[in-house]
Parts: sequence; C-alpha cells; structure tokens
Amino acid sequence: MDAAIDIIACKRDGKSLSREQIQQFIDGVVSGEMPNYQVSALLMAVLLNGMDDEEMVALTDAMLHSGRVVELPEIARPKVDKHSTGGVGDKVSLILAPLAAAAGLCVPMMSGRGLGHTGGTLDKLESIPGFSVELDDLPYRAQLQSIHQAMIGQSADMVPADRIMYALRDVTSTVESIPLICSSILSKKLAEGIDALVLDVKCGRGAFMQTEAAARELAEALVRIGVGMGKPTSAILTRMDQPLGCAVGNALEIVEVIDCLKGEGPKDLMQVTFALVEEMLRLGGLAPADPNVRADLERLIADGSALRCFQQLVEAQGGDASIVDHPTRLPLAQSVEPLCFEAVEPAYVASVDARIIGDAARVLGAGRLNLDSVIDPAVGVVLFKKLGDPVIPGDALLEVHANDTTLCLAALTQLREAFTFTNEPIQVPDVILDTLC
Amino acid sequence: MDAAIDIIACKRDGKSLSREQIQQFIDGVVSGEMPNYQVSALLMAVLLNGMDDEEMVALTDAMLHSGRVVELPEIARPKVDKHSTGGVGDKVSLILAPLAAAAGLCVPMMSGRGLGHTGGTLDKLESIPGFSVELDDLPYRAQLQSIHQAMIGQSADMVPADRIMYALRDVTSTVESIPLICSSILSKKLAEGIDALVLDVKCGRGAFMQTEAAARELAEALVRIGVGMGKPTSAILTRMDQPLGCAVGNALEIVEVIDCLKGEGPKDLMQVTFALVEEMLRLGGLAPADPNVRADLERLIADGSALRCFQQLVEAQGGDASIVDHPTRLPLAQSVEPLCFEAVEPAYVASVDARIIGDAARVLGAGRLNLDSVIDPAVGVVLFKKLGDPVIPGDALLEVHANDTTLCLAALTQLREAFTFTNEPIQVPDVILDTLC
Repeated sequence: MDAAIDIIACKRDGKSLSREQIQQFIDGVVSGEMPNYQVSALLMAVLLNGMDDEEMVALTDAMLHSGRVVELPEIARPKVDKHSTGGVGDKVSLILAPLAAAAGLCVPMMSGRGLGHTGGTLDKLESIPGFSVELDDLPYRAQLQSIHQAMIGQSADMVPADRIMYALRDVTSTVESIPLICSSILSKKLAEGIDALVLDVKCGRGAFMQTEAAARELAEALVRIGVGMGKPTSAILTRMDQPLGCAVGNALEIVEVIDCLKGEGPKDLMQVTFALVEEMLRLGGLAPADPNVRADLERLIADGSALRCFQQLVEAQGGDASIVDHPTRLPLAQSVEPLCFEAVEPAYVASVDARIIGDAARVLGAGRLNLDSVIDPAVGVVLFKKLGDPVIPGDALLEVHANDTTLCLAALTQLREAFTFTNEPIQVPDVILDTLC
Repeated sequence: MDAAIDIIACKRDGKSLSREQIQQFIDGVVSGEMPNYQVSALLMAVLLNGMDDEEMVALTDAMLHSGRVVELPEIARPKVDKHSTGGVGDKVSLILAPLAAAAGLCVPMMSGRGLGHTGGTLDKLESIPGFSVELDDLPYRAQLQSIHQAMIGQSADMVPADRIMYALRDVTSTVESIPLICSSILSKKLAEGIDALVLDVKCGRGAFMQTEAAARELAEALVRIGVGMGKPTSAILTRMDQPLGCAVGNALEIVEVIDCLKGEGPKDLMQVTFALVEEMLRLGGLAPADPNVRADLERLIADGSALRCFQQLVEAQGGDASIVDHPTRLPLAQSVEPLCFEAVEPAYVASVDARIIGDAARVLGAGRLNLDSVIDPAVGVVLFKKLGDPVIPGDALLEVHANDTTLCLAALTQLREAFTFTNEPIQVPDVILDTLC
C-alpha cells in the first residue's frame, strides 16, 4: 500500500496510477483518511497531467463501487438511460423518457439539479404541482415495472466518492478535467443499474465545453470509458450556441415538453430528442438498423402514446397530470414583458446567446445563484425568434416571465445583448454535429 | 479582488499571477481564509506550471512580509549570510561564520534543524554543552554588535506563510518546485535583515537536487530572484556525492569544525568554506576583486583569529568554550566500531554514497526519523577514506559512534553498501562546480 503522498507524486510526475493506487485514493476519499488538501493536490495533478483509458476505467469503477449500486434483474425490458452535459433550455429528458418507454425501453433515470446557468431536470419536474423526485427503493422498482420509467434524484448512499470530490473540485478549480468529468458522469449513471447509456455532449456558448474540439474529446472519452466499463455507450454531439427549443425556466419548459409530446415541438428540440431515443433503442437492441425508426417515433407522438406515458409518469410520482390539458395550472409568473426588435429595417437573427439567456433566467429566479437559493418555478424566458428567423421592426424577440419588477428589468437589460442580427438570410446549421459510437 | 478559485484557475491554465493575486494568496494562507485544500491545489498548479521571475519575486516578497522582518540599521559592517540547500556532513556554516566575522563581515545567521538524511546547524550547535540557539531580539542585536555573528533559530513571528506552506507541501508532494523552493529559502533569509546573500547549492546523491542540471536551474533562479528582491546574491554549485569533510553527526562535526579552524580541516570542506566566504566578502564590498583574498583567509585560520571568533560565539550563546581545547568534553558515544575494507587486493575508493551515510547516521540517532525523534548528539559516522583514496585490505574505511548495539549493527549493515572500489587510481573532481553571480 502506497502512502497518499506517493500516489500524488506519481501523478505529479506524469506517471500512470495503478488500479490499486486509484482504489486506495477513492477509499481514502470516502473514509476521510485522505484529507481534503491531499485530495485537491491529486485532483490538480490529474487535471494537468491527465489519465489514460485504463486509469479512467479504474477511477470510474472505484467511484461506482464507493456506494450502493442498484441492480434491476427483475426488469425484462432493456434498461437504457441518457445523460446530457447540460445546456440552456435542455428539457430533452422529459420528452425522451416517456417516448422511450412508449417505444419499449425501460428508463431508470436519476438526474441532477440546475448548475450555474444551466437548468436541472429535477427542478423542472418539481414545478409540476405535487410531483416528488424522491422515491424509496421498492416503489421505484414497482414504478419501473409498471410504467417503465422513473425520474428521481440520486440517493445519498450512491456514489459518495463523487459527492465529496465534486464539492472539492468546485472550490479548487479542478472541474474542467476529462478524466474527472468522465468518471463523475459514468459512475453516477452506471450506479442506476442500466444496460446501456447514450450521452448528449453539448458544445457552444451555452455549454460546459465551448468548442467542438473540446466536446468531441470529452464525448470520445466518455464512449471509450463506458465501453471499457462493459456497457454499450454512444454519444451525440449537439450544438448549444442558442437555447434548445424556446422555453427557458422550469414551468415554462414543462409547457414546452407537453407541446412536444403533442407534436407541436420546436424542430431543434425534437431532432435532438429523436436522435437520442434512436441511439437508446439501438443500444437496447430494439432497433437493429431499422430505417423506419424515426417514423415509428413520430407515430408514437402523433397517436398520443408518448403523451400518455408522460401523464403516467406525472401521476405515478404524485404530480397533477391535469396540467397536460390545462398548462395554466402550472405556476404562472405575475408579469410577462416582451423584448422587441428595435430597428428601422427588417433583418435576420444571426445569433442567440444561450449563455446570456441562461444567466438572465437564473437572475429571474429560475436557477440558483448560491447554495441557499430557492428556485422560482414560474419565471424564465420564452423565445419567439431563433437563429435564422426573419424579424421586422417591432417584432417581439422574446418575453420575460417575472415575479419581481427589479429582477425583470435586470433580466431585460441582460437580454438586450443576447441577439445579433444580419441583413442577409443565413443557413441554420444542423443542431446535431455527430454521433459517436 | 479575485476569488481563490480564480487565482487557482489562472495558474492551472498556465497564466502568470499578478502581484495582487499573489499577495491575496499569501494573505489568505496566513489568515486561514484560504483553506488548505485550495492552497494545496494552487501549490500543485505552481509545481506543474511554474512561475516566471516576476511572480517568484512577488511570491518571495509577499512571504517575506507575512511576518516580522528584522532590520539592523545599527550594524555598521556589511551584513552577509550564507544558505546551503543541505547535505551530509555539511558543517560549513560553523566554520564560515567565525571566519567571515574575523574577516570583517557581520553574519546574522538564522538556521534550521536537520531534515531527512541531512543535518541541521541548530542540532549541531546544541551538541555543545550549554549552547542556546534561542536569543531574544535585544541580546541578539547586542551580540551582532560585539562579536559580529550569531547563530539562532528563526522566531515564530517571522515568515509564518512559509511555515504553513512548508508543512502542507511536505504532505502533498509539492516540495520539488523551483518557485516554491526559491521563495521559501529567500523569504526566510531576507527576513534576517541582511545586505547580501551567498548560496551553496548542492547536487548529487546526498543532495536535494540529484543532478547538476537541476541544481544549476535552482541556483540560477535563486540568484535572479535574490537580485530581483534588491539584494546582491550569488550561488556556488558544489558536489554532494560523498559527505563534505569526514564527520557526520552532531558533536562529531563540532570536533571537525574545531580541526578546520585550527588549520587541520579536510580539503573539500575548506575549499567550499573559503569559496563561500570569498563570495560573501565580495558581495559585502570588502574584497573587490582582491587576488589575495584566499591567502588572507588562510592567514585568519593560521593565526587563530577565526578560532577565537568561534570561541566568542560559543561563549556568547552560553556554550562551554573549553571544548575548543578539550573536544572530549563534547558528548561521546559509548562504543566506536570500525568498518574495514574486506578484500584481498589493494584498491581505490570509487565512490562514497552520501545518502547512505546520512541515512545510517539518522538511524544511529543523529537525525530525526519523525517529528517526535530526539537527537542523540554523540552518535554518527567518521570517514577515514574518501573518494580516490587508496585502500589496502584491513584498512578501516570509517567508524561508527553509537549508543545502542542494535542500531550500531543496523548502521554497519547499511554502511557496507556506501563504498565502491576500483583497481585504477581515479581523478577526484573538484568539489566546486561553478560560481553563479
């Protein structure tokens, strides 16, 4: 057994850590025997000197087994989940899980809260009156058996190593590391007891990874490590320069999810959702090179199957399913203020900055500014114009849903910087950049 | 003012820290506002991404001013000190300070304890019965006025940033960093209120820096940063493959110091001492390109001036100065065991491993194995043969001075590995590799 300082020195000197050294590191993190100051020195050495695939697999494996690992042998359907690296307006999970369940998969989804300028699935679900994201093990399993989907938070006994390391990474500038990101994502997802995993790796202004090259590097590592862990894994590389869909804010996004499930969703949001569900079906063995799979999915939307699955999910977790037919029963903001296109000539939208819109929504109360922040489910931003759309003077570009006049004005001031315009029509690039498998 | 995580991120990304960022870092270290886990992440980022000269000067300056800085305006003589990066048998300070005082300098020397396999000046001095290395400010200044030298430990209110950071570096594998080593050494030395500084940077088996290239890099940085701090600074690069001189162990080294001051010192030890004192005189403005300075120093030894200065030092700090004439009044070990050359043919010593000899002396009790270890002043090793010396079968190579039979045997077993031999006479390289100024 190595001393902690020898493990740190090994990575400091750019050497590979052995499986035993990595196990000892994670054991020390969880037991507290390795003090924070040694953990953070090692995290910085990992960030700067990297890890090879063997180390990343060993790290993911050690983190995965640092707590309870769910097993779901009683589930006959292929159990496949999706993870997104996070973006603005990214409500894909809430459309994808009912659709995948309608298509024959089981989706045991454990999600997170909003982080920074990006939203979180749990926060969005909790804007539905009555919806609970906490389920004990037995009712959770019963729900997966009956309606083939569940959306909950991860329980405290799962992947404790990640919770400790994540808190430390956040305050030691060691978040932006491929090995640390990969092991954090994959250990949490594999603890769900899934058979396969599809990743939505986003890049652009509103994403964690700003450049396509950085996102591709992360996506490739995630796929290699997932496969190295013995789980079929693929990744879809998607653009996150402008928000996905039109709604940004918790209840506002639920309204958009219902629209999508009724066949009235924005094109970019549906494209990403369909592409991810197709990969989930392929990895789950339900769509072996089926050329009509997209048509099948469109049919599950058109005939109301996916929407029914969403209603089942809401009901099963204590939510008011009548919101599907009466979206005004969701929390509503007190005031709705438009932001208009102030110009003398018509133009085209040349860019919509997802980062600015995410930050403005956060200022309004849709996200957290610190650990004590309480989310306001009603507030947010709804876009009326997106990249490439023609605009004429006076057009509303977006509307702000607010519960506080001062915050509303602050958000509107920020949002004025979110759009750029051009006189020439522009080609809107496909939201999906690539599929890695 | 930046958040700590922004300062860490800046260095993580390989950028230069501003003077303000470095000041904020050191303020945070000393006040405790920057927790250990952030400090250690930043230390690792500094180790791996380095610092430019401007950053190193700013770091040294911030550390220097983290506590009390001594000023000695009442001292008319040039105040010059020497620092060694540490070696085995390195008792240079104890010869150098009296000699420099005899030559007209003032030497306000604050020293450290033994570290690892290397000895410490304070431990050596404390083997002299009655000698105290703790002096209050007023008697310290009075002593510098009267006998132009003092050898004490650094008080707790000086350079507190270094104490905190050093303890953390030790347990986070962040010791081996040029910027961190330079700022630690220079901040402590400049806090003494000196006008100039000479450094003995050692390289080889028994040194902190194993290779000449690494030692040269450190020496060059130390000189640049010292000069950048406004203090004339030079460095002498010396070999530390075999111990310096013949004695290793506290009282045994005091005996050798007395021999040296009586003109009977080993050649390598005297060469290093003379070279360092010459640089001190040059930087202190007392020997501007004087070609006879070496002869002057030899005369100060030959006429007993340096020895008298040593006696004054011992007396001034409460020690028994009669040891100079009666070295047996120093602590003596109970048993003295030789290690002999067991071979059938005569040979030449091809190497004497300073590291092994330092470790063996530590095992005997001359150094510390952990923080609670108590030094035994009497024990150690005396070499009879050094690099290049001819040996015939049966010759004593060294003797072990021990107070414990088990430890004596353990040391002898280790020491058998310390020597290698050759049949051909060998050229002994000069102990001094270079002078950088």
